[in-house]
Amino acid sequence: MAKPREALNFPSSNSIHIDPYLPSTSPSSQPSSQPNKPFVTLTYATSLDSSLSLSPGVQTVLSGPESKAMTHYLRSKHDVILIGCGTAIADDPSLNCRIEGVGGYGGEGLQGQPRPIVLDSRGRWNVTRESKVVKLAGGGKGKAPWIFTMSEVGKERREILEGVGGQFVQLPGKDGMEWAEILKALGERGVQSVMIEGGGHVINTLLSPENASLVDSVIITLAPTWLGKGGVAVIPDERRNEQGSKIAVGRLRDVKWVPLGEDVVLCGRF
Amino acid sequence: MAKPREALNFPSSNSIHIDPYLPSTSPSSQPSSQPNKPFVTLTYATSLDSSLSLSPGVQTVLSGPESKAMTHYLRSKHDVILIGCGTAIADDPSLNCRIEGVGGYGGEGLQGQPRPIVLDSRGRWNVTRESKVVKLAGGGKGKAPWIFTMSEVGKERREILEGVGGQFVQLPGKDGMEWAEILKALGERGVQSVMIEGGGHVINTLLSPENASLVDSVIITLAPTWLGKGGVAVIPDERRNEQGSKIAVGRLRDVKWVPLGEDVVLCGRF
Repeated sequence: MAKPREALNFPSSNSIHIDPYLPSTSPSSQPSSQPNKPFVTLTYATSLDSSLSLSPGVQTVLSGPESKAMTHYLRSKHDVILIGCGTAIADDPSLNCRIEGVGGYGGEGLQGQPRPIVLDSRGRWNVTRESKVVKLAGGGKGKAPWIFTMSEVGKERREILEGVGGQFVQLPGKDGMEWAEILKALGERGVQSVMIEGGGHVINTLLSPENASLVDSVIITLAPTWLGKGGVAVIPDERRNEQGSKIAVGRLRDVKWVPLGEDVVLCGRF
Repeated sequence: MAKPREALNFPSSNSIHIDPYLPSTSPSSQPSSQPNKPFVTLTYATSLDSSLSLSPGVQTVLSGPESKAMTHYLRSKHDVILIGCGTAIADDPSLNCRIEGVGGYGGEGLQGQPRPIVLDSRGRWNVTRESKVVKLAGGGKGKAPWIFTMSEVGKERREILEGVGGQFVQLPGKDGMEWAEILKALGERGVQSVMIEGGGHVINTLLSPENASLVDSVIITLAPTWLGKGGVAVIPDERRNEQGSKIAVGRLRDVKWVPLGEDVVLCGRF
């Protein structure tokens, strides 16, 4: 069968370096307090000055085509992929997997397609029939999204999402959803692996001292550019030891750096 | 001859990747407006969140022993190494070269030793007989520093510095010294290559849109850790195009990523 148009290829010469950090092959690091916690892979791309984009709401292409293929490869290895509503609003992302051989791109049904999860505690994202995730789900090229929220959901939005097989999931919370609750809700729904893609708020809260231990693998792409002040930066909250001294938020172990085109991919574990 | 105690070794299996970015071997990229501009190598080590240290004034060991050896190797390849007074005050750095074979570490005289340059426009750094750079110069283990300043210099400090062969260099300037003036002053003194090591203020002003073109090579070490908010961050000023849109400050070309222990070294040109 010919390679479908749009389908991406991530050669095994690259993937062999990254596979050991993926859920099916990584040693389990699930904390006993949460036996059903899904395997969590955090992945994002930044500039050298740790920015995801030039400005809030501005989509910025940082990494090269090889990194794009890698992202789609990673998506094919996770049950769900998760983003915050800021990214959904700014980018109207497709959130499906276009790696060659998955469902819709040479494969059967929706095999290998991850389910998109959008965190939208306050119901800011106005999902419509024109949203790419909805259209792709309707067209059999991606799974229908689940939107995690703390807000009331209007009838029209609910009908649009449920019409393609998606759903709204109500989560408890006062100031915002807790990561432990989000992962628990995913685990209860049978999700065994989640790839967390961004944006800035999602990444920074996940890397904060109280949540970082929930992360199993980290796969970060770094591009050889500086975006300058005013960007959307990945800088977690500071961490202090019992004596009150500031210490590093976290250092990765089992580190591997994989040059990929002009970029480098950092793989590691918490 | 036995390897002197303290001397560092940077194996050629590592240096072959980095040599093409060093002054003696790199193609000249001197702007015609400044025919005597020295070759400028910018080098520093940051965390993934682009911090040089946990807090202002706090020395933070980010990178591993291989990176330390690389820094000393790089020093041996430049006429001078340059830092800001904030780093001089916080770290009391040695600023000499301890790579095996240079003067004082197995070699003759001061062969291969770079001269330390400290930028201290307002005369904040109280150099004394106990300052490491002064003691090393006095002991034949490093060249005597030049301190570039816009301020009056007291008799005692001048005597201390000149006593080991160093000097204060007065530079013009109102709000601060200009990079073009600093490099011009170095060029006029016969300096052909300068390695700029930090700290935050020095790096950020050099990477700012008006100065970045002065940089020839960049050699950055990245450590797989996050330091969190409140660190000394490398984030240059933003750059805008003629239409007023924010654009990247700069993207490196001829990029090479060299894994080194737990860290990665990024080499590139502006």
